[in-house]
Amino acid sequence: MTPLDAPSLLFVPSSEIENRLRSLQELMSQEGLDAVLICQNVDLFYFSGTMQPGFLYIPSQDEPIFFSRKNMDRALEESPLTNVIALSSSKAVPALLAERGLLPPQVLGLEMDVLPANIFVQLQNIFKDTRLLDASILIRKCRMIKSSWEIENMIRSAQMMTAMVSEVTKILKPGMIEIELAGQIEAFLRKEGHQGFTRLRGFNQEIVYGHVLSGPEGLKASYIDAPTGGAGLGPAFSQGAGVKPIRPKEPISVDSVGCYNGYFVDQTRMFSLGQPAQEVTKAFQALLKIQESVVQRAQPGVPCEQVYFWAHEEAGRLGYRNQFMGMDRNRVSYIGHGVGLELDELPVIGQKFNWPLEPGMVLALEPKIFLSGHGLVGLENTYHMTDSGLERLTTAPDDYQIL
Amino acid sequence: MTPLDAPSLLFVPSSEIENRLRSLQELMSQEGLDAVLICQNVDLFYFSGTMQPGFLYIPSQDEPIFFSRKNMDRALEESPLTNVIALSSSKAVPALLAERGLLPPQVLGLEMDVLPANIFVQLQNIFKDTRLLDASILIRKCRMIKSSWEIENMIRSAQMMTAMVSEVTKILKPGMIEIELAGQIEAFLRKEGHQGFTRLRGFNQEIVYGHVLSGPEGLKASYIDAPTGGAGLGPAFSQGAGVKPIRPKEPISVDSVGCYNGYFVDQTRMFSLGQPAQEVTKAFQALLKIQESVVQRAQPGVPCEQVYFWAHEEAGRLGYRNQFMGMDRNRVSYIGHGVGLELDELPVIGQKFNWPLEPGMVLALEPKIFLSGHGLVGLENTYHMTDSGLERLTTAPDDYQIL
Repeated sequence: MTPLDAPSLLFVPSSEIENRLRSLQELMSQEGLDAVLICQNVDLFYFSGTMQPGFLYIPSQDEPIFFSRKNMDRALEESPLTNVIALSSSKAVPALLAERGLLPPQVLGLEMDVLPANIFVQLQNIFKDTRLLDASILIRKCRMIKSSWEIENMIRSAQMMTAMVSEVTKILKPGMIEIELAGQIEAFLRKEGHQGFTRLRGFNQEIVYGHVLSGPEGLKASYIDAPTGGAGLGPAFSQGAGVKPIRPKEPISVDSVGCYNGYFVDQTRMFSLGQPAQEVTKAFQALLKIQESVVQRAQPGVPCEQVYFWAHEEAGRLGYRNQFMGMDRNRVSYIGHGVGLELDELPVIGQKFNWPLEPGMVLALEPKIFLSGHGLVGLENTYHMTDSGLERLTTAPDDYQIL
Repeated sequence: MTPLDAPSLLFVPSSEIENRLRSLQELMSQEGLDAVLICQNVDLFYFSGTMQPGFLYIPSQDEPIFFSRKNMDRALEESPLTNVIALSSSKAVPALLAERGLLPPQVLGLEMDVLPANIFVQLQNIFKDTRLLDASILIRKCRMIKSSWEIENMIRSAQMMTAMVSEVTKILKPGMIEIELAGQIEAFLRKEGHQGFTRLRGFNQEIVYGHVLSGPEGLKASYIDAPTGGAGLGPAFSQGAGVKPIRPKEPISVDSVGCYNGYFVDQTRMFSLGQPAQEVTKAFQALLKIQESVVQRAQPGVPCEQVYFWAHEEAGRLGYRNQFMGMDRNRVSYIGHGVGLELDELPVIGQKFNWPLEPGMVLALEPKIFLSGHGLVGLENTYHMTDSGLERLTTAPDDYQIL
């Protein structure tokens, strides 16, 4: 492993910020937005290089202004933006814009998917003659296309996950409870530089690195929008690793995220203590085939939904029509998702999602078979879409590790 | 340590749910709300016993209805509520209410502090003739007063933190980097049954267990609303443990949360590898005095702000007027906060927060001194307010651990 760089080496280059702003401003002009006001920490970081508290005002035709509410020195150090102004109250924004010769926007875009309702109502009162629209899709569209600098961070993130797989082969022991294994994996990743916090954008979505699940108990669906769930620790956190001891021969699925400099990759690998049942290894072979069949055909221009159908078609052909991507009514309608600074980025490789694949997208593809009586059998890798197809970032061998 | 109970033993008793609903319905009647629609996962769990996806409709005078969007079997298993109805789309809610003879509410309360703006706008369209109001303060008021069942969970959570302190004395070694220490603490807590995810309610607030900080670098303010920050890992996660090696004699502050069955307690303890500078131990003695001076006087009926003033008064008397609760402009305006299923619960022990202390509140009091050139010196304990004053939950000795 390359050692983790010092914080100052991780700053977002100014060329990155310029490109990101230009890409958003193009989309804004197409959609008739005069400005966008960024409030959420991850979007702030993406467009300014800092998530120190404040608002980022991005006009469609002008330089952005960072209104700093706290830690202005740290914001100035981290962000390449030069228009940074101290702000005592959000009410002052229109006056501060006017001072700089900027008229109040007629149409202002907001992150309506994450902005709390009471802040939205406050902004309605502050921008009285402005039409407020949801700009979250535009923001998420920009973030969907990764630069080579972002891919470099994700490669570091994936290296962490390769090291983690060999660590699991060393620490996994019979009688260990799931949560103990999860904790040791997490401690290993932390030492490698993982931030420990997995960012999800969706309302009510939360996760700790991922799901470490073993045996039939791992088949339970959870409250979050994920194919897997598990018993978890009880109704207060009913997902992921629980207090179940890991038994010999059962399938153990380690679905977890690497994170380097804020950038996630998503990976699932299988382990067993002793040779698992034939049904389990057969299901795993099917996953390898499903993965191969979609990865080869997923090219720029192919609609996301098509990739989803290919996966289901192959799963059906191999005899897993009713056990693919969930059990019974609890199946999810996707087989993959975008990954970046958040784990639930665009695109969705799923039903009714017709966007074409584009170079620069980063996708986690996660075929999973739910084997009644045995447990979850999964495989997941993160890929970078290039002009000539998918390039795999998570390069740890796919092999089912039988210890 | 008592071993972690099986998930089914952790279910919320029906008497708890009844009391919680009754307490909210009383507040609703006082405020003229006809109903409240609960959408956020932690509030759902609090009022229904399950956080499986759905909406909880609570009329001020009638039985609540849980509209289940997913995993209805799991919701039924976890929740003592009996009115559980499958829901395909939120648009169907008014019709489903009408089927049960319930009129659309005239005034409907929502969790406007956490509800995303686009869901709020959807609800405006669904409840066209209804006035939508912010009910988040009512909900947070209910949650502020803990039952004896909740206190029992928090006692288990605090036991975890006592065991953690002695674990740190074993694992802390010179040359360790902060993030490695943090990872080992986290792995220890996971094994003890910690859910690993720290829930914060505030917009843009996120944290991983807490902040492990050492030396002068630990004095940096962060983007979250906490007195402490630290360099963190870089601008993408600029808080908490970083890549700094822990040096002999410097102050090491371990501020972290226990969590049992969803219930947090908050605790800070100090460690050093070798005798720290005299200024550091002197500051720590001052913290013990500040803690003593407020804990003894904090009785039911005393305004929260008064406790804040007492702490500042004592800090000033001891010579720390300008180093207490932050550096320079980055000071926070509180010295404590409520704790429960979320880490940022009510009340705020801070400026302009005049609510009287009440039996049943659970408070984390966290006096902290920012010693320029040395680092952060902190102390934090979580207390249960009883009729006769504060009862301490985090019973690990306060002692500065010099190893």
